[in-house]
Amino acid sequence: MEKRARVLIDCEDAKGLVYNISKVFYDRGLNIDNNREFVDKEHQRFFMRTVVSGLFDVKELENELKSVVPSDAQIKVIEPKDKNIILMVTKESHALGDILVRHADGELGAKIQCVIGNHDDLKELVERFDIPFIHVSANELSREEHEEKVISKINSFEFDYIVLAKYMRILTPGFVKAYPQKIINIHHSFLPAFIGANPYKQAYERGVKIIGATAHYVTNDLDEGPIIAQDTIPVNHRLTWKDMQRAGRDGEKVVLSRALALVLNDRVFVNGNKTVIF
Amino acid sequence: MEKRARVLIDCEDAKGLVYNISKVFYDRGLNIDNNREFVDKEHQRFFMRTVVSGLFDVKELENELKSVVPSDAQIKVIEPKDKNIILMVTKESHALGDILVRHADGELGAKIQCVIGNHDDLKELVERFDIPFIHVSANELSREEHEEKVISKINSFEFDYIVLAKYMRILTPGFVKAYPQKIINIHHSFLPAFIGANPYKQAYERGVKIIGATAHYVTNDLDEGPIIAQDTIPVNHRLTWKDMQRAGRDGEKVVLSRALALVLNDRVFVNGNKTVIF
Amino acid sequence: MEKRARVLIDCEDAKGLVYNISKVFYDRGLNIDNNREFVDKEHQRFFMRTVVSGLFDVKELENELKSVVPSDAQIKVIEPKDKNIILMVTKESHALGDILVRHADGELGAKIQCVIGNHDDLKELVERFDIPFIHVSANELSREEHEEKVISKINSFEFDYIVLAKYMRILTPGFVKAYPQKIINIHHSFLPAFIGANPYKQAYERGVKIIGATAHYVTNDLDEGPIIAQDTIPVNHRLTWKDMQRAGRDGEKVVLSRALALVLNDRVFVNGNKTVIF
Amino acid sequence: MEKRARVLIDCEDAKGLVYNISKVFYDRGLNIDNNREFVDKEHQRFFMRTVVSGLFDVKELENELKSVVPSDAQIKVIEPKDKNIILMVTKESHALGDILVRHADGELGAKIQCVIGNHDDLKELVERFDIPFIHVSANELSREEHEEKVISKINSFEFDYIVLAKYMRILTPGFVKAYPQKIINIHHSFLPAFIGANPYKQAYERGVKIIGATAHYVTNDLDEGPIIAQDTIPVNHRLTWKDMQRAGRDGEKVVLSRALALVLNDRVFVNGNKTVIF
Repeated sequence: MEKRARVLIDCEDAKGLVYNISKVFYDRGLNIDNNREFVDKEHQRFFMRTVVSGLFDVKELENELKSVVPSDAQIKVIEPKDKNIILMVTKESHALGDILVRHADGELGAKIQCVIGNHDDLKELVERFDIPFIHVSANELSREEHEEKVISKINSFEFDYIVLAKYMRILTPGFVKAYPQKIINIHHSFLPAFIGANPYKQAYERGVKIIGATAHYVTNDLDEGPIIAQDTIPVNHRLTWKDMQRAGRDGEKVVLSRALALVLNDRVFVNGNKTVIF
Repeated sequence: MEKRARVLIDCEDAKGLVYNISKVFYDRGLNIDNNREFVDKEHQRFFMRTVVSGLFDVKELENELKSVVPSDAQIKVIEPKDKNIILMVTKESHALGDILVRHADGELGAKIQCVIGNHDDLKELVERFDIPFIHVSANELSREEHEEKVISKINSFEFDYIVLAKYMRILTPGFVKAYPQKIINIHHSFLPAFIGANPYKQAYERGVKIIGATAHYVTNDLDEGPIIAQDTIPVNHRLTWKDMQRAGRDGEKVVLSRALALVLNDRVFVNGNKTVIF
Repeated sequence: MEKRARVLIDCEDAKGLVYNISKVFYDRGLNIDNNREFVDKEHQRFFMRTVVSGLFDVKELENELKSVVPSDAQIKVIEPKDKNIILMVTKESHALGDILVRHADGELGAKIQCVIGNHDDLKELVERFDIPFIHVSANELSREEHEEKVISKINSFEFDYIVLAKYMRILTPGFVKAYPQKIINIHHSFLPAFIGANPYKQAYERGVKIIGATAHYVTNDLDEGPIIAQDTIPVNHRLTWKDMQRAGRDGEKVVLSRALALVLNDRVFVNGNKTVIF
Repeated sequence: MEKRARVLIDCEDAKGLVYNISKVFYDRGLNIDNNREFVDKEHQRFFMRTVVSGLFDVKELENELKSVVPSDAQIKVIEPKDKNIILMVTKESHALGDILVRHADGELGAKIQCVIGNHDDLKELVERFDIPFIHVSANELSREEHEEKVISKINSFEFDYIVLAKYMRILTPGFVKAYPQKIINIHHSFLPAFIGANPYKQAYERGVKIIGATAHYVTNDLDEGPIIAQDTIPVNHRLTWKDMQRAGRDGEKVVLSRALALVLNDRVFVNGNKTVIF
């Protein structure tokens, strides 16, 4: 039966890659519905995302592609289907609510397995949508003890990504290491400005005329992971930092949802500490 | 000797195009420095812009490419070099000035052959840059008589594009027809809003919260040609229409220069009444 | 007891207005917490919004202010409290969902009395939030018959504003006339571009590089009422009109919620067919 | 004879300020053409910019205003006229060129007294506009020696502001101290991101999706002075840092010119390390 797949290739650059890869598709009679490539000249790295359709076996196609590209290549042939995600939250409802509404509407492109909160303020909102809310309080626990509890909850679900929808605790290196390129965070500033705590207060005190939001993969350098999406909002002297926080929330939720859509559609490659987005 | 060229292909979509085209490059040992494609599914139309480098003869490469694509294909193999342009202006200096400064700095990517004005207000500015200013007054002339004079001036120069840098007269169908896809205009609104005369006044009277600018190819439908670039600027109730005009000028000049850079770098395909931009 | 109020004054411009009005506040020992004025020079019209605090009687303060301003003045002294709103929707969940989440979080600044839908697609979402959803089908009804039913539902509630959160039917002049400056709509284009049906399709067909959204008061000229807020989103040739629709939804919901916050905080004056926003 | 002035007041907040100040205007029969106020609640500081017209003596009006406001007040009554500015540049032409074109057109609102360059690359461009270019090479000079030479040149002109239009040297504390709130700089990033050298390279390496520009007053903390205006430009993985630099220039010149217009129109108050902009 005819099917469709996203082919993702990430490898050392080499002569003839487009030819060799498109030859595989051509020889198998596959249609190219969409194709984008990028070569990072600085690091001599090739990225390609092709949507093909036709008759093929995923494993076979992967193997055949492997035979025509450099040996370091990462190749994925992915049939589009909803991915599974876990949300982690603290007290703010805007980013979470945006995702819940999209989910309820069937336009998220993912199934929310559960929402984990270190506080229980958002339990009611989550349960309105018939999604499990798991409260893992950090009270009187060390960071490691708390995360151990979180991990035991997380691991009872299948998931592709963990989405930090305003989760206001810093994850330990151990946690981050356990889920490489699988944790997505929204930070409430246009990084690298205002890393760390209370960026709106920092922005207010610096007197900036623009605030922003940044969605990024989480790595062990705080707010330093590969950036997926950013946006900015103009502000002025009349806004207190609370006003900035309020104004900034729209940016945060929109940027997080935009980043999530890119990731869920397999449009994001991580390239060192940057992203290539098709 | 090694050289570089931009290969532009625009044809009916067909199976195997990427393969067949990349095979030509591969067989000749050319490097693909950059490659972008797009398929307009609605009209089954394929667009490709590839930058190749290596040893090749332009004519031969064109012919070989022709042999592997549908017969309706438009193929251009263009070696990068500065194009020639003619500017047409009326009284406002901002868009013209921006282009003159880039030109003087060598960053325009084009040689300005001359500037034609229906008024002579901008003569001094143009001559500061040692560029010929030709005043073709429209006084007591019919539209056709005036354009005839303009055309006789224009045709004494070699040029690739005519850039209307706030030329405030409407061109006749005859003029436009003589230079298809060669005339670029900046309109001072985010088209299709506020077509025609005095868009800032229209915007003021409508009470919009955003004004804009649009660079487009000129066709015989007033302000209806294929759009190349647009941008917007926030405004509010405190601005008079003169204030909007002033604020809008920055947008106009930046959008025109951005569009011009795209066109001069052969990054724009016209696709019916739209553009494909790589 | 100390209280706070928003004083809104809208009158013919005259010499000494700021002095005369501030004298009233001064003589009564009121603090000015915030003050903004605007004079529309074209129409010689004065607008002022002052937040005062202190000891005062609302009616007395209004009367005293009346005595010092031109006789055509509209004066309102409003003590901040949540207003009541009614939402009208059709099938799309994004604008509605955004408002419901803010409402549930207590940050909307309004109480949603009910949601009226001409379809029942959104019943489930609304009821998740324990808000009454009223389905008023338009099936086999004339426009007038349908609206009569809607009005009978509406009028069983107290409300300050009707918010059309992607209500996809055109209201009759009779309906609009019944609620002057009380109906707020979100239109899915940067008006005045793409008035009427399916603006994303129009935008796609025009080949624009920017799409947008506009929140405005509803008047009897379709999509021509006073604009409260607008925003734009960049697009390109790769987006189908369905993609534009999807991308545009974030803009729609954010612009509507922003407009709603302005209206609910009494920050918007209607000035002819425009708005003055403080 | 009737005249116009901008009245700027910056003082400790106090009850009745608007009343007391507007009383002064009222008693003298002055018209208020425009009025804006702001109270910084955090620091209990009041700012007001009023444009008045009528019959008055500047000194008398200032004195009378002084008598009704707190003793720490800074009061300026300024009759609108072109200010004098000195530009300092290095090698890049875009910000300079933008200002020169506005100047030639009479729309800058300032007279350029001279342009000082630590290199002579821009001599030709400046002299095209019949403005003195003064080359003060830093070759083999200490920072202090170089600045001494610059200062001796500067001080031979009357000027209100020094505008650093991409002047790529750091000024010494002594220089900055000599011209408090008189030096305006354009920095090629959205501060506080990417302080210091080569922000585009920093931005490229960080993989941001947005670049920006910031105009600010120069203080002795590098790139930390009060921000006047900022803007951002979207970028993506395809841009090298050179491409970002090129793309960013439009933002730089527009932001600098916008900031300059605000300053020249006396619309900017410095409030600690921030600005209040009317």
